Amino acid sequence: MSKVAAFGEVMMRLEVPRYATLSQSNSLNYSFSGTGVNVVSALARYGHEGYLLSELPDNPLGDAAIAYLRKLGIETDYISRGGRYIGSYFLEHGFGARASRVTYTDRWGSSFNTAQFDDAVFERAAADIDAVHFCGITLAMNDEVRAAMKRLGRAAKKAGKTVIFDCNYRPSLWGEGSYELAKPHYEEMLEIADIVFMNERDAIHILGMTASEKDRAGQLQQLIPQVAQRYKLQAVAGTHRKINGDNTHSLIGYLYKEGQFHFSRQLTFAVYDRVGAGDAYASGIIHGELQDASPLHTVEFAAAAAMLAHTVAGDTPLATEGDVLTAMQGELRDVSR
Amino acid sequence: MSKVAAFGEVMMRLEVPRYATLSQSNSLNYSFSGTGVNVVSALARYGHEGYLLSELPDNPLGDAAIAYLRKLGIETDYISRGGRYIGSYFLEHGFGARASRVTYTDRWGSSFNTAQFDDAVFERAAADIDAVHFCGITLAMNDEVRAAMKRLGRAAKKAGKTVIFDCNYRPSLWGEGSYELAKPHYEEMLEIADIVFMNERDAIHILGMTASEKDRAGQLQQLIPQVAQRYKLQAVAGTHRKINGDNTHSLIGYLYKEGQFHFSRQLTFAVYDRVGAGDAYASGIIHGELQDASPLHTVEFAAAAAMLAHTVAGDTPLATEGDVLTAMQGELRDVSR
Amino acid sequence: MSKVAAFGEVMMRLEVPRYATLSQSNSLNYSFSGTGVNVVSALARYGHEGYLLSELPDNPLGDAAIAYLRKLGIETDYISRGGRYIGSYFLEHGFGARASRVTYTDRWGSSFNTAQFDDAVFERAAADIDAVHFCGITLAMNDEVRAAMKRLGRAAKKAGKTVIFDCNYRPSLWGEGSYELAKPHYEEMLEIADIVFMNERDAIHILGMTASEKDRAGQLQQLIPQVAQRYKLQAVAGTHRKINGDNTHSLIGYLYKEGQFHFSRQLTFAVYDRVGAGDAYASGIIHGELQDASPLHTVEFAAAAAMLAHTVAGDTPLATEGDVLTAMQGELRDVSR
Amino acid sequence: MSKVAAFGEVMMRLEVPRYATLSQSNSLNYSFSGTGVNVVSALARYGHEGYLLSELPDNPLGDAAIAYLRKLGIETDYISRGGRYIGSYFLEHGFGARASRVTYTDRWGSSFNTAQFDDAVFERAAADIDAVHFCGITLAMNDEVRAAMKRLGRAAKKAGKTVIFDCNYRPSLWGEGSYELAKPHYEEMLEIADIVFMNERDAIHILGMTASEKDRAGQLQQLIPQVAQRYKLQAVAGTHRKINGDNTHSLIGYLYKEGQFHFSRQLTFAVYDRVGAGDAYASGIIHGELQDASPLHTVEFAAAAAMLAHTVAGDTPLATEGDVLTAMQGELRDVSR
Amino acid sequence: MSKVAAFGEVMMRLEVPRYATLSQSNSLNYSFSGTGVNVVSALARYGHEGYLLSELPDNPLGDAAIAYLRKLGIETDYISRGGRYIGSYFLEHGFGARASRVTYTDRWGSSFNTAQFDDAVFERAAADIDAVHFCGITLAMNDEVRAAMKRLGRAAKKAGKTVIFDCNYRPSLWGEGSYELAKPHYEEMLEIADIVFMNERDAIHILGMTASEKDRAGQLQQLIPQVAQRYKLQAVAGTHRKINGDNTHSLIGYLYKEGQFHFSRQLTFAVYDRVGAGDAYASGIIHGELQDASPLHTVEFAAAAAMLAHTVAGDTPLATEGDVLTAMQGELRDVSR
Amino acid sequence: MSKVAAFGEVMMRLEVPRYATLSQSNSLNYSFSGTGVNVVSALARYGHEGYLLSELPDNPLGDAAIAYLRKLGIETDYISRGGRYIGSYFLEHGFGARASRVTYTDRWGSSFNTAQFDDAVFERAAADIDAVHFCGITLAMNDEVRAAMKRLGRAAKKAGKTVIFDCNYRPSLWGEGSYELAKPHYEEMLEIADIVFMNERDAIHILGMTASEKDRAGQLQQLIPQVAQRYKLQAVAGTHRKINGDNTHSLIGYLYKEGQFHFSRQLTFAVYDRVGAGDAYASGIIHGELQDASPLHTVEFAAAAAMLAHTVAGDTPLATEGDVLTAMQGELRDVSR
Repeated sequence: MSKVAAFGEVMMRLEVPRYATLSQSNSLNYSFSGTGVNVVSALARYGHEGYLLSELPDNPLGDAAIAYLRKLGIETDYISRGGRYIGSYFLEHGFGARASRVTYTDRWGSSFNTAQFDDAVFERAAADIDAVHFCGITLAMNDEVRAAMKRLGRAAKKAGKTVIFDCNYRPSLWGEGSYELAKPHYEEMLEIADIVFMNERDAIHILGMTASEKDRAGQLQQLIPQVAQRYKLQAVAGTHRKINGDNTHSLIGYLYKEGQFHFSRQLTFAVYDRVGAGDAYASGIIHGELQDASPLHTVEFAAAAAMLAHTVAGDTPLATEGDVLTAMQGELRDVSR
Repeated sequence: MSKVAAFGEVMMRLEVPRYATLSQSNSLNYSFSGTGVNVVSALARYGHEGYLLSELPDNPLGDAAIAYLRKLGIETDYISRGGRYIGSYFLEHGFGARASRVTYTDRWGSSFNTAQFDDAVFERAAADIDAVHFCGITLAMNDEVRAAMKRLGRAAKKAGKTVIFDCNYRPSLWGEGSYELAKPHYEEMLEIADIVFMNERDAIHILGMTASEKDRAGQLQQLIPQVAQRYKLQAVAGTHRKINGDNTHSLIGYLYKEGQFHFSRQLTFAVYDRVGAGDAYASGIIHGELQDASPLHTVEFAAAAAMLAHTVAGDTPLATEGDVLTAMQGELRDVSR
Repeated sequence: MSKVAAFGEVMMRLEVPRYATLSQSNSLNYSFSGTGVNVVSALARYGHEGYLLSELPDNPLGDAAIAYLRKLGIETDYISRGGRYIGSYFLEHGFGARASRVTYTDRWGSSFNTAQFDDAVFERAAADIDAVHFCGITLAMNDEVRAAMKRLGRAAKKAGKTVIFDCNYRPSLWGEGSYELAKPHYEEMLEIADIVFMNERDAIHILGMTASEKDRAGQLQQLIPQVAQRYKLQAVAGTHRKINGDNTHSLIGYLYKEGQFHFSRQLTFAVYDRVGAGDAYASGIIHGELQDASPLHTVEFAAAAAMLAHTVAGDTPLATEGDVLTAMQGELRDVSR
Repeated sequence: MSKVAAFGEVMMRLEVPRYATLSQSNSLNYSFSGTGVNVVSALARYGHEGYLLSELPDNPLGDAAIAYLRKLGIETDYISRGGRYIGSYFLEHGFGARASRVTYTDRWGSSFNTAQFDDAVFERAAADIDAVHFCGITLAMNDEVRAAMKRLGRAAKKAGKTVIFDCNYRPSLWGEGSYELAKPHYEEMLEIADIVFMNERDAIHILGMTASEKDRAGQLQQLIPQVAQRYKLQAVAGTHRKINGDNTHSLIGYLYKEGQFHFSRQLTFAVYDRVGAGDAYASGIIHGELQDASPLHTVEFAAAAAMLAHTVAGDTPLATEGDVLTAMQGELRDVSR
Repeated sequence: MSKVAAFGEVMMRLEVPRYATLSQSNSLNYSFSGTGVNVVSALARYGHEGYLLSELPDNPLGDAAIAYLRKLGIETDYISRGGRYIGSYFLEHGFGARASRVTYTDRWGSSFNTAQFDDAVFERAAADIDAVHFCGITLAMNDEVRAAMKRLGRAAKKAGKTVIFDCNYRPSLWGEGSYELAKPHYEEMLEIADIVFMNERDAIHILGMTASEKDRAGQLQQLIPQVAQRYKLQAVAGTHRKINGDNTHSLIGYLYKEGQFHFSRQLTFAVYDRVGAGDAYASGIIHGELQDASPLHTVEFAAAAAMLAHTVAGDTPLATEGDVLTAMQGELRDVSR
Repeated sequence: MSKVAAFGEVMMRLEVPRYATLSQSNSLNYSFSGTGVNVVSALARYGHEGYLLSELPDNPLGDAAIAYLRKLGIETDYISRGGRYIGSYFLEHGFGARASRVTYTDRWGSSFNTAQFDDAVFERAAADIDAVHFCGITLAMNDEVRAAMKRLGRAAKKAGKTVIFDCNYRPSLWGEGSYELAKPHYEEMLEIADIVFMNERDAIHILGMTASEKDRAGQLQQLIPQVAQRYKLQAVAGTHRKINGDNTHSLIGYLYKEGQFHFSRQLTFAVYDRVGAGDAYASGIIHGELQDASPLHTVEFAAAAAMLAHTVAGDTPLATEGDVLTAMQGELRDVSR
């Protein structure tokens, strides 16, 4: 198995218990997550060693986050302590016709986003691990964080390690006219990356590519090969999701590799907690790539992992490799005794 | 925006946490509601000022009710304190094939139902507000309450204000052979009213009208115009509801106005808490009428408001005007960040 | 061991979780209790058979009460189903300088207080059981209940069974100038009773006796022998309680029997839930009398039972005979493994 | 109505609150159940007297189990106290594509499985009750328990009482190559039994019968009559279940009696808690047989009882006879006020 | 009664349920508080009208805060909506030898601390209300907030209204060497104020005064008259608190007015939630001053109000005037029925 | 800092929420603990690396235990997975005069107590760590576990590492006449050990020593030096505890070293959760010995650590070194902001 590190912020998730609003309730459940947290935690459950490169405040909230990450199976040796705050968000679960709502508190001043990352640590990490994961959310933060992200990426690249980049473009983080702002940073990251998560919308909006096809499936087939070629990517992957009226979602995953598209079956499933399911998909793809699995197996595995992530509370996938393999077979089981 | 008052009882809702029965559980969640509470709270969220004309006991339960009404955005200036009890009901949530159950405690001796309402307050309210809402549940209580209800209705009518009456006929409250008993009181209220909520069943059972049509839709089209004409009503509105086998309901709203029927699309949606959804529909119609919106917009808005009310815990609608307008567009959204 | 029945109302206790108020909280814990419930449940834990003579509504609340009584170890064969409501009360726990508050809902219209009790059942019970327990709270309800109480008491007396009466005078139930109203009814019950729970205040206020002594202890010693003699009582018992500033209470129990007073040591103890502790004391005395224990052992047992009842949540004592005997020894134990 | 006893273990169910895993959560809900518990509790709700023949430890867990069984309406007179442990299992509720998981603790050393059952008690029970229920889970425990089970069964048979046997074969309890081990014991129980719950898979795997038909329905029709004839059974019953992708199950019940098959309609319904639903089906069949109802009514009643059991939390059915009869009519009801 | 406004931030309190730490728990209770919130809410319970001058974000957290403030009885007309965040803090309750811990999130960027307050609103408020309350915590925030605070104070002063200032110096907010920084701002506020809350430590540390007395009581008597004279204050008040080993605190209140000190009795009491008790004391003093009560009554009332505030969950006092008057009498009551 | 491993069982603690009994409640909180868990977790908070040598089942309960241990800061590399069960105990919290109760489930068949420990792992651990901790509870289990314990102890001794042994004699585990049974095993462990936790009662009862002194303090001073000399112990330590009537305990710690006794001050403190406090004391002593602190500092540190452990929920100490040092100063602090 491999050692995989993620560079990214740990956030506190403050969830109103099902299905009340913040005005109705007076209690919250909390946990700690983040794209990087979710990905390396999932990989730890598949048998890899998962590390996080991050910074947390040296206060009771930071302590609680560290304890939680350890509980998730993540190694915390590369997490420094400093700064003053932990970014957080409030989640109100929707139901049926009522959408879930996320309200962020100030993450700009968080420990991670104000950290002075130590290049010596980056060098050590680059030497020690097999793959590093980055995320477009981190890219949206500020110049210092962006710079650190690229430094670490280049160090890993130079050391011959696999660099993973999830585009994960969030319009609300970049602000108005943001695509212009984001484009050069995304291009830099794509230059560094080996495995990339994105779809045709990222290609069109962020990279400014144009498609002659009208529907999403066609655009995907048209644009992703161009991106893969331009940036010499080992693999590009992503999903198309559809939200149905009966509390179910439908999802189809793709993996483009060595000039070929591989698609999962379309899965339709009941949704309990949607947040973090994209990270489960990503971890399934990364696991397949790290294991050199066949692309078709990998994309089916990733789609099943994403499906299962919709059935657990919290942002972070909990399924083991065995759980995902069982779910891939598609037959629903009675109580497992 | 307008000032709208409702005359009605505030009840304590004591809910067994999902989906246990009273024999199974040992804890309850409580809130305070009532048709009037639900309607003016919803209108307050649409930007109006919502008042309640009611009486609550001067004890910790009355204090808790006042605090809760204020939290809902309701103005409590017209609520007097006195009497001894607050009416209450226990709600056991059903699931699928098992229906929800409501068990009432003694509401007949409640503060509201034993109150001596002050005509001077009624006159002041009639002068101050733009519309008053009444409900058939209140009409079922006792002679004193009925008399007060009519006095307030007439005072509002005389002051040129809009009188709203929701038929809301509850067989269990009127007892055996109750239609005979109820009919004259309903007729009196219809004489006073401008906006009325009812459907063909009320026309047939309470008013004793006969229909040649066999199905509900036909009877509605046949009888409602007669009612509207007989009582010179500005608007008559209501819904037809269907309970489906998969924890969803289907609902279609109607609004009859100026000689014409307007129907909403049929909406089918997952149900989280069914209680109070009729009041959400009523508040949507009232909002449209107070705003002079087009009848079609109003009936679609009201149906969407009713749909959203099925997705929140508690009797009282929580949606803002923006929430309802979004839901009217009919597209299901992913997590709103 | 004996068969003991209690005649009395079953009430629903709705408790705000510690130590919030009704305005602050949104949830309640519920249980079912009553003086009779508490006494026969405690006796059942001491090895007797405990029955309740009562009526409960034939609805989900009545079902839940029956289930709860069975869980407490009470036999429910003599409980009829009918009427419409169950009396209930809300309890807000105080803390330190803030006293607990009890708010009653309408118990006057409860199933028990509107029941038509069947004399045939009373005769059967009188023949079947060894002792019947009555309470002054029941005496305060209405003429029908009072009459039923006396009929059952006389039937038991006539059958040679032990009649127990707990004065339990509640000023708020009798209303203004209530002592005059209550006196004849209390006198009738004292004529019937064998074992009576009261103290000097009951003698002075209800029975209109006068004491030359100034302090409570002296008045007790002066008046109780007169009461015992006048009504030919087998035993009279009660407690003196002191509320201390540090969340502890001090309590001393007395038992007057065959012309002699017997006092327990003064016990001082931390209080978790004060409600129902008097009933624990009564059940300790009844147990001793039914077992023909020595008066000193009985009064110490009863005081220890009362002390333990302050340490458990809910109105109803939970201690077994062994628990009380251990507590009588007065030594505090570490965790019992 | 009848007196029905069940011989079987009481287990503690420790359930992670919906829908977390043991690693995620830090709290559990607990209750007490078991096939026998579920069956006689359901029968008690239909108006019969339900007894349990079992043993529980004389410690706080045993006390809690006794209290819980009494709350369920079960008579506990035939439960002895002794041994050291109560068997227990942990339940993690699945959601959609994620199956529920049950993890057992050591039940082999439980009070029930190490009890010395007293033949005098068996004789008394056999004389006193009308029917006794046994279960294949008990048969899997150990030689002493198996022997006691057969002794009690023969005593009941000899006393002319109805013997009920639910095959309930659990592969994990018998271990590898278990069918060989189980066969003679099942055959002995079938010799004793009058009413048997099983389906074609039991006939094939346990009894070693062969079927020429390929599908389950055909095999059922082929094999069950042979079993009924061979063991001279009064009635054989069971279900076929299908797990659907949308959190619903489909179920069809059968009852073979006097040479004829009777089938319920296929019911499809939303599932809240699947555990124990088979016991609800069994209790419906037993109720019909004890009441001499028509086979078609009985099988429809049993299927509706099973459906309702999927809608309540916990293993133990809660529906009354009225609830089941209403559900048999198949129309979904709005809130019952 | 009077109209009293407070100028200050509304904070979200996120409390770990008793008595766990953030690392141990996974749930929080939340409420909304702040010095101004606490003071005007308490005054509203004494019969005054309480207003808040503040700003809250226009998001679900702001909505929840508004609803909560309304529930507390506070008028929210002067609260503007804007900015991005609500300040918040996490509270871990200590027990006995383990102190409670408060961890702040970033309040510097909160809506209140980044608001552009409108002078027209200040003028309107100054004209409308009778008294305005300010707090030293607000003074510690930033130059804009400080400037707004002083503008509103001067507007109120000019309009002849009572200006109240609570020194409430928090070292952690001002940072290193902070007294120098704070002094001129405190002096400006003292120039404006009529009623001031402080004690000898504020005089020494913030104002740089020196005392020849060695003990706190002597220093208080020496310095407070100088402060009152220098700034021409109507009243100066405060408390001395002692933390005892047995989960109780001891508190003595003082009020200096017209050249004389008035002290409350020393109160010793069990503590349930210490946060916000100082604000209860302040509101008692303000109530007395607004009512022109005798200074001795006022200081005893304020101390009793502070004592009661230690007995309720949450920062915000809940006692009514009647509750405080009862507590002033000092006798502990049994359950109030 | 050092590497410390503990050899011992991980148990599941199932706690009834405060202060209900198992019969009253329907929910439990769970965590994972054990003497070894508590000690190495506490040491991890003081800055050491804490390892556990144990076995856990390869099922969801084992997974949950591993996750929990990681959350506590414990390294789980030396924990093997196998066997079938995890030992568990139920805790009902007492209050005041009512003692806490612990009910064990079957731990004899647990994974740890049936494990085949691998000598190669023991050798590796002995080489890798600085100190190993053993406990008398493990010694009471069975011959295989005892043998493994001694093998590991000797391996560590041979490797020159510090061997720690906590006598922790539990009468209920050894059974009747158990001292005879236990003595040789304790003697063997004392031969191996360097640091021992015991007091005069262990010397008298287990080792069969006799004391001429009558009181515990005198016996301690008489016997411990003999034990230390006989077994050549580096240090012997323990506590004397007194349970007071007001929910407080008093505790005095001792450390005997190099021929001298060192005693802590007597600490008296409010108790929230008593379980595990002895392990906190032990970890304080071990920390001092590993750090070569002065004996007086060590014993005061250990006593303060024990005191703090009584103030947190759960068996496992949570205090950091800083927390303990603060508590050693003995002054009670207000809210720490």
